Order: sequence, then structure tokens, then C-alpha cells
Amino acid sequence: MERYEIAVIGTGPAGLSAAVTAALRHKKLLLLGPKDLSPKLYRAEKIDNYLGLPGISGADLARRMSEHVLSLGVGITEDRIATVYAMGDYFALQGREMYEAATVILAGGVVQGKPIPGEEALLGQGVSYCATCDAALYRGKDTIVIGYSPREESEADFLAEVARQVLYIPMYADPVHVSPAVTVLNEHPQEIRGGLRKRVLVTREGEHETDGVFILRDAVSAGQLVPGLETDGPHVRVDLSMATNLPGLFACGDLAGKPYQYIKAAGQGNIAALSAVGYLADRKAAGK
Amino acid sequence: MERYEIAVIGTGPAGLSAAVTAALRHKKLLLLGPKDLSPKLYRAEKIDNYLGLPGISGADLARRMSEHVLSLGVGITEDRIATVYAMGDYFALQGREMYEAATVILAGGVVQGKPIPGEEALLGQGVSYCATCDAALYRGKDTIVIGYSPREESEADFLAEVARQVLYIPMYADPVHVSPAVTVLNEHPQEIRGGLRKRVLVTREGEHETDGVFILRDAVSAGQLVPGLETDGPHVRVDLSMATNLPGLFACGDLAGKPYQYIKAAGQGNIAALSAVGYLADRKAAGK
Repeated sequence: MERYEIAVIGTGPAGLSAAVTAALRHKKLLLLGPKDLSPKLYRAEKIDNYLGLPGISGADLARRMSEHVLSLGVGITEDRIATVYAMGDYFALQGREMYEAATVILAGGVVQGKPIPGEEALLGQGVSYCATCDAALYRGKDTIVIGYSPREESEADFLAEVARQVLYIPMYADPVHVSPAVTVLNEHPQEIRGGLRKRVLVTREGEHETDGVFILRDAVSAGQLVPGLETDGPHVRVDLSMATNLPGLFACGDLAGKPYQYIKAAGQGNIAALSAVGYLADRKAAGK
Repeated sequence: MERYEIAVIGTGPAGLSAAVTAALRHKKLLLLGPKDLSPKLYRAEKIDNYLGLPGISGADLARRMSEHVLSLGVGITEDRIATVYAMGDYFALQGREMYEAATVILAGGVVQGKPIPGEEALLGQGVSYCATCDAALYRGKDTIVIGYSPREESEADFLAEVARQVLYIPMYADPVHVSPAVTVLNEHPQEIRGGLRKRVLVTREGEHETDGVFILRDAVSAGQLVPGLETDGPHVRVDLSMATNLPGLFACGDLAGKPYQYIKAAGQGNIAALSAVGYLADRKAAGK
């Protein structure tokens, strides 16, 4: 399998900044995330404190960042990584496909809000964060998809190609566009309960028996993304060089702690990339 | 005396970013440093990794940053701070004038290169970092000014108004423009020796007896700028919130450690300003 030198997970300001610096240092780079960048950024009406670009709109800043990355010949691989495994001298990234990289930079943003009660306890036992990864397990079965952004609608559509039933609960106000095979359910999830054979999703409006509940957010919580990673609440524990407790793994942007600011995220992305470059150089010097 | 809420020392990317964020948070702000910003930035031919502004020239980036600050109504006070004193619940900043501020953000850049042997031992005993602060002590006496950038020439001119003799040693290649009262000495400083009455500057070319040696660099070393500040080599010791060991004092940019990068400096300036804002809020909540 192709082994990348640096894999960047996330296409917000932190991930794009890391990708820019890594590309300028001529590293074999894998940039993973949605091509339409961060929806949060796109929706920002006006950003006043991105030094050098006063009063820029979120859409304009996103466009400039995206063009910057593209101008360096960096492509974006549209895959959602569900798990990163530290394999010793490299990392294995599991999304729709598998990838390998010597270093990984986590820049996927922070999970906003609290988990749904029952969600964490039942993860892997009827609760999943990745429809494309786990769809095959639900062939001919009943599923519920809880989607936190319109981006998740295509995941529900994909699941509907194999599952018997897909109920889709949008957690946003935008109009929903899903395939006819998906049933939209405008309810408010409150709890997930396990059972011997079935799972039960309790909503403010009622209860739904199902085989699997897919919870699809923009970001996966860091502790669940990388087994063994030290976290501090919703944040990854980093030092000033953006290094985590796992050698070769770095984190930056909102995921690395407050404040949640674009210029801070871009700055940390730069630091993380240079730290990854330094780590690769040290390893090479050590003959590994 | 007027008490500022936030004093920012330094007008490079870190200081300007801190000033932008502090101004947007409506803090009573004092921004100290040269108006022509960082000469290092101005001279950068092309900066490739400032996310959103690909391939921008240093001069263009400096202009954009400067305009950003000015657009928020922030003025730059052109004074060079020689010492910051932690007074308990505020800081006293000593430059040509005295200032007071509840919090201070150090963003003055890092001192490049090693001190001249003897420099640190003789500081305050014939060696000074601030001509405008200490000129009065050298009325009718002999002085030597070692200037690390053309910006220091006006300091030598100022000193020549009171001192009997000013020898000026430029540590740069640019042409020197000083007043007729200043004598330019093209030599290479190697050591400063103390004596009972006079100091001796040893250069590669010879020796010069003098009353005072002024060493004028773009940045003052952090440990000398703030008594009691914890440092790590040329850098100030900070945590992820850019806090130093002195409550209310923050540091960012090159001064806070490597990598020396513009986007990293801008990101840290933003963090430092928000940390200062948080510190002020906490103090207010505690009724101080």
C-alpha cells in the first residue's frame, strides 16, 4: 500500500494550513476531508480578525484558502476517517478506504454539543459513526441515520442501497434532499437504548425499534477517532509543537483547544506541519 | 497616569494580530513599536504559507496587516520599551515615557544571535539597551552605539545631542545616515570589558575606551525586558494560552518559540489577546 509521509485529516483552516506548509516542504501528502470545506466557515457572514484580510466573508475566506491549497497542486481526498490506528512506525487510517501514513495531523474540528445518552456505551454495538464503513453490516436490516449537516444525506442514500429501511433525522434547519428510499423523520433524539436483538431510539415524539443507529456529525470525537490518544474533554492534549501523546501524531485547530478562531487554527496548522516535517527528519536521521 | 487594559509590545504579525483582536473586544489598548513594522517582514520577497494570501510579498503583507490595524482605529505609539515591571495588579512599562497597563502582551520578536561577551555582565554598568532612556546619564561623556538596523541611527543622533562623543558601529550592510556629530566606525565588536572608571570595547580592529556602550537591536532579550520572567534560551516560557509565569503577562510570536513563521505568529497573537481579555474578565469578576 502507498505510504504517505503526512496525512492531514480535516479541510478547515487548520488542515488547509497544515497542507500548505507540508506541500511547500515537498512531503508526500494526503489531505482528507470534504471538498466544500467547513460549512461553519462558509456561513460566517464577516470575519474581522484574520490578520491581513479585514472584514472578509466566510465564503470568501474559504475560497481563498481553498485556492491557496489547490495552487500548490494539493488534491483533496473526499473520505471520512472513522479510526486512526497507531501501528508503531506508521498509522493506518480507516475510512471508506484504508490509508497508511508515517505521520498524521488531526484537524477535523471539535465535536460541538453533548453525545446522545447511550451513544457512547453502544458504539460498535448498534451505534456507528460511519455509514460507508459499516453499511455492509446492515444488509436487509432497519437503520436510523441522525445527520448533523446536509452533507450526511448522501450517506443515508448510500445506506439505503443495502439496508431494508433507512429513517433519516435531520439535526439542522436546511431543506432535506434524500433519495425516495429514505424516509425523513422530523423528531428530536433523546436517548439510545440497547436490547438483546434490537436498539431503541427514544425521541421527544416517540420510540423507534431499529437494528442500527448511525450518528453522523461533522467531527468525530478525538478519543474515538484514535485509540490511545490522550484527550482533555472534547480536545486533544497537545504541547506547543502540537504533538500529542502518540509519537508522529499531531493535532491543531479547534480540536486542539480553545479559542475557536480561524487565524489561530491556521497558525497551529503551520506548526503541526513543521513538527511533522521535523519528526520525519529525526526518524530518517535515526535510520528508520 | 492613564491605565491601559492591554499593552502590546511589538508591531510584527504577532503584535498586530493581538492588537486587532483586542481592539475588536473593545479593550483600552496601547500598541507599542515602530510604525514601519518588522523590517524582516518588509524584506521577505515572497511568503508562500500565509493561508489565504498565497505568494504574497513581505511588503504587501506588511501593508495589509498595517491597514487592518489602522482600519480598527488602533494607533501605534512609537516607543521602545526597555523594561516591564510587574507591580502586582498592573505593569509599569519604561520606555522614553512610562506607561501602565493591567495586562501586557510581549510580541517583540526574538533576539537573533548571541550577546557580545561582557554585554550581560555589564548591563546597567556602562552597557545600555536604550539610548533614549539613558542618554541623560552620558551628558558630556564618551559613548559607543552598536546598531543592528538603520532604525538605530536616529538613536545615535539623539544621543549625540547630549554626549561629548558618539561612535556608531553599524552591524548591517545598508548605507549609514547619521548626523555630523556622530562618527561612524566600521569595526567588528568582540568583547566589552569593565574597568574602574571606563569601559573598553574590543573589536577585531582595536580597542576603544568609553563611558558607555549602547547595544541597540530590534528586540530586547526577554529575560532582560521583564525581571522575573521565566525563559527558555532566547524564548519566553508560555503555555498553550500564551500565558507566562507572571499573571497578566502573555507572550506570542517568535519570542514564544519556534517555528518562526508569520501565520503562527498571527495565530498566537490572537490567542494571547483573548487570554488577556479572559484574564481581565476574571479579575473583574473577582472584584479587583
